[in-house]
Amino acid sequence: MRSSAVRELLKLTEQPDVISFAGGLPAPETFPVEEFTRALGTVMASHGARALQYGTTEGYTPLREMIARHSTRYGINVEPENVLLTSGSQQALDLIGKVFINPGDHILVERPTYLGALQAWNAYQAEFVAADIDDDGYVTASLEAKIRSGPKFIYALPNFQNPSGITMSLERRKRLIELADHYGVPILEDDPYGQLRYEGEHVPPIVHLDSEFRSTDGVRYSGNVIYLSTFSKILAPGIRLGWIIAPAEVIQKLVQAKQGTDLHTSTLAQIAAHEVAKGGFLNEHVKVIRAIYRERRDTMLAALDRDFPPGITWTRPQGGLFLWLTFPEWMDAAEVLRAAVATRVAFVPGESFFTDGTGRNTARLNFSNATPEKIREGVGRLAGCLKRLISSRLA
Amino acid sequence: MRSSAVRELLKLTEQPDVISFAGGLPAPETFPVEEFTRALGTVMASHGARALQYGTTEGYTPLREMIARHSTRYGINVEPENVLLTSGSQQALDLIGKVFINPGDHILVERPTYLGALQAWNAYQAEFVAADIDDDGYVTASLEAKIRSGPKFIYALPNFQNPSGITMSLERRKRLIELADHYGVPILEDDPYGQLRYEGEHVPPIVHLDSEFRSTDGVRYSGNVIYLSTFSKILAPGIRLGWIIAPAEVIQKLVQAKQGTDLHTSTLAQIAAHEVAKGGFLNEHVKVIRAIYRERRDTMLAALDRDFPPGITWTRPQGGLFLWLTFPEWMDAAEVLRAAVATRVAFVPGESFFTDGTGRNTARLNFSNATPEKIREGVGRLAGCLKRLISSRLA
Repeated sequence: MRSSAVRELLKLTEQPDVISFAGGLPAPETFPVEEFTRALGTVMASHGARALQYGTTEGYTPLREMIARHSTRYGINVEPENVLLTSGSQQALDLIGKVFINPGDHILVERPTYLGALQAWNAYQAEFVAADIDDDGYVTASLEAKIRSGPKFIYALPNFQNPSGITMSLERRKRLIELADHYGVPILEDDPYGQLRYEGEHVPPIVHLDSEFRSTDGVRYSGNVIYLSTFSKILAPGIRLGWIIAPAEVIQKLVQAKQGTDLHTSTLAQIAAHEVAKGGFLNEHVKVIRAIYRERRDTMLAALDRDFPPGITWTRPQGGLFLWLTFPEWMDAAEVLRAAVATRVAFVPGESFFTDGTGRNTARLNFSNATPEKIREGVGRLAGCLKRLISSRLA
Repeated sequence: MRSSAVRELLKLTEQPDVISFAGGLPAPETFPVEEFTRALGTVMASHGARALQYGTTEGYTPLREMIARHSTRYGINVEPENVLLTSGSQQALDLIGKVFINPGDHILVERPTYLGALQAWNAYQAEFVAADIDDDGYVTASLEAKIRSGPKFIYALPNFQNPSGITMSLERRKRLIELADHYGVPILEDDPYGQLRYEGEHVPPIVHLDSEFRSTDGVRYSGNVIYLSTFSKILAPGIRLGWIIAPAEVIQKLVQAKQGTDLHTSTLAQIAAHEVAKGGFLNEHVKVIRAIYRERRDTMLAALDRDFPPGITWTRPQGGLFLWLTFPEWMDAAEVLRAAVATRVAFVPGESFFTDGTGRNTARLNFSNATPEKIREGVGRLAGCLKRLISSRLA
């Protein structure tokens, strides 16, 4: 295993004068501190000892029920037995790896893909097969040969993908489902940002479309898609709370793996999250988050349009936390980063999100954490670095 | 991986009329609910957003510092860079497995040993070499051949072992250190219960004795022993907080593994635990826990002495949460459990704590969770089952 570029860079962001577009940190201003304070008070007063005691590996029953109800409302018709609470979405990726991946197994991933998944599955000696994506996600035309080769599963991050910000179109999702069905390959849908859409139409999750595709009544959970999500981006990441939706027999296997991994996820965190989330708070709260992040995305896009030199392109995400830069071929993002850090700006070079050593001229920018003022200032500094690099090459 | 007998049995204990000696649950009456309520209030008021934000993989710095100071006071002279916070001690076992165990590696364990370690390392396809223990722990006379065969590491739970309740004597600890040194095999010391001693003299941890053995000044951390402990038994298990003490370069490897496993342990849990534990609260609090558990252990031992039929023996632990029953050879603990559950008592058959399919006539009893009244009643019911089994065999 190699050290994570993202995590190492996060250390930089601890210095207060650095403007960081590097991490994937939510804006702390969006955290519902008051609601958590109240919820923690209520939880400790009404069942404090229970919140401090061991719990079951599957998770706190009322929270499993809430997630099942919520999922059903969004078109994924599941029962609590289809839900496993995890210590953040990262643990979901780890448990999936532990249960399903044998050394040498091929996993089909997007190119680029989420670094955390690569880290989780490298530990189980997975081999990665990367398929190209364009502005509509997986390029399904070229995907068929890769699915035919028999990967263990297909990993898809269809909404506002980390790192690229790209959203998979409805048509591409449907084609992916057909191909996966035809070749008998399951899909792992990772959806941490699905609720953070700032413009455009909601596209149903793959798990929902797969149920329509398969079941005669169009609503029963089909089981061919395992679905991951998290409270990290809609509530708070510091409580480390995510979930897996899967067939009951898969959940049982994951539960056994989780027993040996960390016994169970913090009872205190689960009961507190349930207390905060119940009664429809999340629906209102995501509107607040969307408004703040929409402004930051718009600010970053406008600053890029205004300040960046020609020859550099970027994605225009409809939601999420990230956008994706492509520098000219000759430009090395690691070199840009070195220059940027000297001017107190940070971002993540794109190479770590590729499995084939390519992507050296790409980079990921986060727009959720810094304020609009900092975003303008940071993009300005970054533009200065790029211009200097370009002119020194021309000189 | 097979399902955990312990965890399946825990489900039984959710029925309120069952007297359970099965789990390893602390007494909820010992949980410092008031202190946690106050601490959570303080944390949310003074740095609420920080407690809800992502943190570093290594852990919350003030808590790492506190653990390093505390360890140094107990004779393990370490720096914060030697400390990694984990999501409970179970995660420490998982990370150790992930970093150190390759398929087929031999791990030397006590016979019987902690089930959670077997579960954690089975996932990495470890092979187990079990060495006998007697009332003083590892029988070092027969241990040498097994260490000579070159296990990856030696796993030792020297204080009030789970499941047997046995404590390794000072002499045996020293001999183990000499053997480990001679054959160049590291030791993994797992010490969740060390502070819960109800009688007898404190025996220094192996990690401390190893430093004395190795370093010229007798205090510097030697690095040949990796040491694990947890807040689960001295504060609360529901916050899932444990720690690893290891050489800085080992901590770095474990940090990389933890990044891919769950990114980091709950920031909220870490800051709250630090707030509760700071200012010497733990020292006072463990005295309260000791008094309660001492009474429960004494109650269970007295009830066993009074009620149990001849032919059954048990350990008399000086601390911890468990004692260990040995039934007559012909008796199957699983059959005893079936009969016991019919009278609404539960315990854990010993077989799961062995790696060689033996131990069918053994059982683990927990004495920390049930009240003295329930302990007397439960032991009485269990004694009734045993007497019926014995007389039906004689009939």
